Amino acid sequence: MSSAYENLTKTFTRLSRFGHLSAIAGWDMMTMMPPGGSAPRGAALAELSVLQHEILTAKQVGQWLDEAEQTPLNDVEQANLFEMRRAYQQAALLPASLVEAKSIAGSRCEHAWRQQRPANDWQGFAENLQEVVRLSREEAEIRAQANGCSRYDALLDVFEPGMTSAKLDKTFGNIKSWLPELLQRIVEQQSREQVALPPGPFAVESQKHLALAVMKQLGFDFNAGRLDVSSHPFCGGVPEDVRITTRYNENEFISAMMGVIHETGHARYEQNLPKQWAGQPVALARSTAIHESQSLFFEKQLGRSAEFLNLLLPHVKQLLGDGPALEPANFIALNQRVKPGLIRVDADEVSYPAHVILRYEIERALIAGEVEVGDIPALWQEKMQALLGLDTTGNYRDGCMQDIHWTDGAFGYFPTYTLGAMYAAQLFQGVKKALPQVSELIREGNLQPVFDWLSQNIWQHGSRFSTRQLIENATGEDLNPRWFREHLENRYLNGL
Amino acid sequence: MSSAYENLTKTFTRLSRFGHLSAIAGWDMMTMMPPGGSAPRGAALAELSVLQHEILTAKQVGQWLDEAEQTPLNDVEQANLFEMRRAYQQAALLPASLVEAKSIAGSRCEHAWRQQRPANDWQGFAENLQEVVRLSREEAEIRAQANGCSRYDALLDVFEPGMTSAKLDKTFGNIKSWLPELLQRIVEQQSREQVALPPGPFAVESQKHLALAVMKQLGFDFNAGRLDVSSHPFCGGVPEDVRITTRYNENEFISAMMGVIHETGHARYEQNLPKQWAGQPVALARSTAIHESQSLFFEKQLGRSAEFLNLLLPHVKQLLGDGPALEPANFIALNQRVKPGLIRVDADEVSYPAHVILRYEIERALIAGEVEVGDIPALWQEKMQALLGLDTTGNYRDGCMQDIHWTDGAFGYFPTYTLGAMYAAQLFQGVKKALPQVSELIREGNLQPVFDWLSQNIWQHGSRFSTRQLIENATGEDLNPRWFREHLENRYLNGL
Repeated sequence: MSSAYENLTKTFTRLSRFGHLSAIAGWDMMTMMPPGGSAPRGAALAELSVLQHEILTAKQVGQWLDEAEQTPLNDVEQANLFEMRRAYQQAALLPASLVEAKSIAGSRCEHAWRQQRPANDWQGFAENLQEVVRLSREEAEIRAQANGCSRYDALLDVFEPGMTSAKLDKTFGNIKSWLPELLQRIVEQQSREQVALPPGPFAVESQKHLALAVMKQLGFDFNAGRLDVSSHPFCGGVPEDVRITTRYNENEFISAMMGVIHETGHARYEQNLPKQWAGQPVALARSTAIHESQSLFFEKQLGRSAEFLNLLLPHVKQLLGDGPALEPANFIALNQRVKPGLIRVDADEVSYPAHVILRYEIERALIAGEVEVGDIPALWQEKMQALLGLDTTGNYRDGCMQDIHWTDGAFGYFPTYTLGAMYAAQLFQGVKKALPQVSELIREGNLQPVFDWLSQNIWQHGSRFSTRQLIENATGEDLNPRWFREHLENRYLNGL
Repeated sequence: MSSAYENLTKTFTRLSRFGHLSAIAGWDMMTMMPPGGSAPRGAALAELSVLQHEILTAKQVGQWLDEAEQTPLNDVEQANLFEMRRAYQQAALLPASLVEAKSIAGSRCEHAWRQQRPANDWQGFAENLQEVVRLSREEAEIRAQANGCSRYDALLDVFEPGMTSAKLDKTFGNIKSWLPELLQRIVEQQSREQVALPPGPFAVESQKHLALAVMKQLGFDFNAGRLDVSSHPFCGGVPEDVRITTRYNENEFISAMMGVIHETGHARYEQNLPKQWAGQPVALARSTAIHESQSLFFEKQLGRSAEFLNLLLPHVKQLLGDGPALEPANFIALNQRVKPGLIRVDADEVSYPAHVILRYEIERALIAGEVEVGDIPALWQEKMQALLGLDTTGNYRDGCMQDIHWTDGAFGYFPTYTLGAMYAAQLFQGVKKALPQVSELIREGNLQPVFDWLSQNIWQHGSRFSTRQLIENATGEDLNPRWFREHLENRYLNGL
């Protein structure tokens, strides 16, 4: 007879196989599917998701978990069991009626938003969003009671296990204390520089070749993944077959190139998760913020460094043609320009945290019931002024209606972007300690030692350790915003 | 409370949603997936197939079928219920152990064949094939006892419901009585013609544009499907999103172009199956042979007619460049060349039936136990001589080892190719009766009336009628090889 733990591993292997099909069909939907496939694809994926939920929340799974928790297990098995319990609890906690209501309200809100945003229709949007907020509060309340924490912390925990608003208040508070001034100094300093734009146009086919060359340079395993086009870039698929996407603009190549570097960071994490536990929860990526730390390590720490940009230049010139804008100093300046703006996804790495902190403060208060949907525009205006010195009065489209996240009720997600940026800076500091000659290595294109460090310290561990333990093991300390600040000061003020 | 029939429709809708995921993941495997995805994809698809089998063969389904068969239902519902019973029986009949053993033996035989065929290793192949034949006989015996028919007829019925070897013996016997002589006369007549080959090379990108232009001309709905590349062309996906593939050869464009016309015939059938019953068995294509009749109607009846080839020529010249080989008479002769050869998939439409009849006679005797695997090479040699006048002694690679079908145990499949060719000719005769000016319509590129006829007579009926009823309704008579013979004589001897 199989032990309870063995039964659990079989169940989670089965779930991961269905997850594989869901991941590939989801990727196809975003990259390949013609419009006519939309309705049946939606129905097929919903049917699969009902099945996955049934398998995960079966009564037997709860019994096996109770039983296995009384059994002697080794470290990895214990970590695996912990993740299984977590997945079970998160899924079993919510009544099916709430899950369905939230899914319907989210779809309706998102669908309408696609028209309302360009129309700047805040009133119409607010009406749908109220329902999403109401249901998200209900969800948060149920999770909060089960976890013994605040409502918002309960939602945060879904994306970022172990993270709390107390900890966020502390680190984000730290960032708020120096960011506006730092930003001002950088903008002032850069205002004295002249930066030339490469004229273009840049053929899509050439940009694709550049993207593939960059992926190769960054160690992407083409035997276990591919690059395609979608309207919103993402990293999907499964660890054995990672699907990343980008989008090309004939007038400008840097966005697509940097986007590919970003997704390659996600992809290498996935491709190098521990194979020996494949199909088990312990083999999955640690958390949303740690995933983002890998993409930002690739894009910001490596990708926008002077050393790496110099390494890229010959590829760029070979594929897109030369010109004065591709002089090394200008190319680097182009990739390191700082310009506060209204739109989060277009933000440079210095202003980005301001966008996130603003959203964090509003969504936390929303979920706590301290503010209502109707209060959002005024809060947005006030915080944009304070953090970035920008006015958004009446411009909902480029203000509080710009993101998709809230339409679906993904409250608790935004903080992971800036957590990721801080972890990336802290990990790069860890690399520097282990490889003092890292700048030289990057300049030479010898990136393997950097990847080895990431693999040994992050990738190969999957979810074996808590985020805090993982980061402490890798860098000797828990999350510390100091390294992010130093990174920004060094790159943007000190030219290091 | 739901009725038994309603419960069945819900179950089959659910099955069709899982079938959707299986179809898309299967398509991806052949067109997009990097090698590293192979093992987890195989495991995921196997897991899904176990689930589909469980859902279909659940005890409750049997009870609902019994109950629904006692309920008053309309015509369409009755046809649907009939197809449900058939699917249930076919799936529930075989013990899981036999299904698994056959799948393992088939995979092993196919896998080894990929090396053995180029090595001409008949002994090695025969060993694996013996096991596949043994298990296929076991399967045939179980099906035969349930259906009250012969072993081979039971396998034939899986692919072609209602077809029997008695009927095949009659029609194939008819073909055998005139084909060798007809073939000889055509070859002799064509030996007097000089045909020039277009020199090439033909850029893959231009061939793809030609393929898309031909698909458009043939009414392919790009809102509900797409064209990609795979090493073996196929038509997959789901009716709302049909995925066809081709492969390009820079030295020769006619194979890819004709392959696309063929797959477009399959695709238009799928795209025009009855939407009002989507997800139900009655909405599926009637049978393998009827499916092939649609692809062969497109490829042979339309695609290789002088009228259609004249219509294509401007596209060909525009995309691939002009030259003497693209003079109308030469281009038509190129597409209508008859040359008996060893390889079935390269055969022209006159010699093709000989390849099929040979395989039919051998596989029928194999399954009946009248011959053994060791007898195949001698039988092959004897029948190739008699039907096509060719010698294959010692050349297993281009003889009895050339096809993939037997490696997987798909006995009963081969006849559907020639049944499809006969149905296609008979249906074209039906079109001519309804539209006496059809040649003129094709010449003008006004194909809509032809497609309307196919839609009204074949596509829109799904599986509502038996094959025999469908063909009789459409053409006024059951399968009659006369129309196929007339088609070949008219095109290849009389130049009509």
